[in-house]
Amino acid sequence: MKLYDSVGPNPRIVRMFMAEKGIEMPKQWVDLRAGENREPPHLLRNPHGQMPTLELDDGSYLSEIIAICEYLEEKQPKPAMIGSTAEERAECRMWTRRVDLNICEHIANGYWFGVALERFQTRITCVPEASEGLKKIAVNRLEWLNGQMAGKDYLCGARFSLADMLLYCWLDFGATVG
Amino acid sequence: MKLYDSVGPNPRIVRMFMAEKGIEMPKQWVDLRAGENREPPHLLRNPHGQMPTLELDDGSYLSEIIAICEYLEEKQPKPAMIGSTAEERAECRMWTRRVDLNICEHIANGYWFGVALERFQTRITCVPEASEGLKKIAVNRLEWLNGQMAGKDYLCGARFSLADMLLYCWLDFGATVG
Repeated sequence: MKLYDSVGPNPRIVRMFMAEKGIEMPKQWVDLRAGENREPPHLLRNPHGQMPTLELDDGSYLSEIIAICEYLEEKQPKPAMIGSTAEERAECRMWTRRVDLNICEHIANGYWFGVALERFQTRITCVPEASEGLKKIAVNRLEWLNGQMAGKDYLCGARFSLADMLLYCWLDFGATVG
Repeated sequence: MKLYDSVGPNPRIVRMFMAEKGIEMPKQWVDLRAGENREPPHLLRNPHGQMPTLELDDGSYLSEIIAICEYLEEKQPKPAMIGSTAEERAECRMWTRRVDLNICEHIANGYWFGVALERFQTRITCVPEASEGLKKIAVNRLEWLNGQMAGKDYLCGARFSLADMLLYCWLDFGATVG
């Protein structure tokens, strides 16, 4: 396997997931800031033009961080960062999607449509008037999440999982870009 | 297991997934239109107040449609509606997330913040000024997806999967609500 890597919270989540599992593989850097991810060499790997992308051993390409992490977990189950039983995996997938849809995606869109508009308006459909409101949803859902954390160290109780990595990397990114 | 069910595209996706696999279980109807999902009996099942929710055999509750469908696939792998190998599951998860984040979520938010604002503004943080723009992103991404479908019958090539169910149920909903 080979990871096509770049700056940004999403590649960071995959690198963190790999580090926790002790997975190492060749990496190739793609210059996201210069838009290399939106040009043919990378578009052949991921027609959606995003980062990161994993090249599998059969030469096919896999994108979307959740799909990549699930694949790595299947190929190397221990230590389990999604779960070691169907019930553990279910709990992690539930929290991962809640965090993804209600917090991370709103931070991402709020960023693309806001402070990063100049860079992204030529790459994706941007909705500048949505930026501030989407960030407010993320703040509101974070407050809800905070209330859900009573008595828990991690989103899945006592175990650190993919859900925490996703939340951490996007919150850290959000704190940097405002 | 027991499914807490309601109107709406998300419960429909789980019902469709169960039907394809021939899974039957008791169901309890929750009156979404009356807001029963936002009140304590259901909030104890799903503190995020959404539908559907699956009650597991140990009495715990599982929400978020992708987590529910993954759990049902693990408990009854055949016929595979996510995939029967790690590579097939990876492909399905990639397409499911692309459809989820770029199309379905924008249709959902565009609906909640737009034509359904009166009902939802007391339930969730709404961003009315984002509604039209988010729907435009969904349309743009659908056009992209259409280009990706050349030579394919389904999102995962020749096999019908969860990714198609997700897309179908949300497009059908979107066509109804405008």
